[in-house]
Amino acid sequence: MTNSNSLENTSKMLSSHKEDVLKSALTLVENCNTVTLGTSGEDGYPNIKAMLKMETEGLKTIWLSTNTSSKRVSQLMKNSKACIYFNDEKSFRGLMLVGDMEVLTDSETRKRLWREGFEIYYPLGVSDPDYSVLKFTSRWGNYYHNLSNTNFEV
Amino acid sequence: MTNSNSLENTSKMLSSHKEDVLKSALTLVENCNTVTLGTSGEDGYPNIKAMLKMETEGLKTIWLSTNTSSKRVSQLMKNSKACIYFNDEKSFRGLMLVGDMEVLTDSETRKRLWREGFEIYYPLGVSDPDYSVLKFTSRWGNYYHNLSNTNFEV
Repeated sequence: MTNSNSLENTSKMLSSHKEDVLKSALTLVENCNTVTLGTSGEDGYPNIKAMLKMETEGLKTIWLSTNTSSKRVSQLMKNSKACIYFNDEKSFRGLMLVGDMEVLTDSETRKRLWREGFEIYYPLGVSDPDYSVLKFTSRWGNYYHNLSNTNFEV
Repeated sequence: MTNSNSLENTSKMLSSHKEDVLKSALTLVENCNTVTLGTSGEDGYPNIKAMLKMETEGLKTIWLSTNTSSKRVSQLMKNSKACIYFNDEKSFRGLMLVGDMEVLTDSETRKRLWREGFEIYYPLGVSDPDYSVLKFTSRWGNYYHNLSNTNFEV
């Protein structure tokens, strides 16, 4: 085998490994009902909170919702840097997506993300000023399984 | 009822509520086998990773272990600010502890935290240079259940 063939094969193997990882990451995202959201507090300490996963578009965009009055929203208005973590505790699989979060309150987005029963969280309904939508855009990710970490751009 | 009696009763109720919250938080800590660790990346983005809970001393001290070569350790050596999150997805209970993490590699601490089967992670055994112990000391916490958040000092 020539050197250029060997390089080509290595490149194909790496590319195939990355494809497998991205597929596994997507399956994990689909199977999770909740995520944990990482934000930065004003004191520079990281904060974590579990949240319901609302909608996802591949690994690039994750939609959540929360109370406008919550600490999470005030942190994100000051510092959009965030991460979202998907975890399957039983199979020791973990996916971290790192990126930025927008806090949205426009009528169209609120309606899109509104779900039956949300009055528990936002008693005034879809136009409740305490109802905010969080739109997360990934920059990069890390997938962990079988003692192996793989980083990838999103 | 006089004003001072009313104040005293309110104070007793609050104190009793806080006791209940701390008890529930401790039960959650005991029932969790894994935690999620929040750290700050060098780029200022928060990072999250699931880890095995090793030992706990109330809500004040949490012991974990990880690979010395891991990104988590290099982040914590530069910035000790961290948080640890305990989550019961089924009952929507969440506990966030915020504080600082020490990375320890002394022989006594390694031995104390070593468990049967750890050779999977640290093939050279208890003296493997890639085996580090993480000691987390809480400053404050937040307990969430039934749509209610309670902050407390630890």
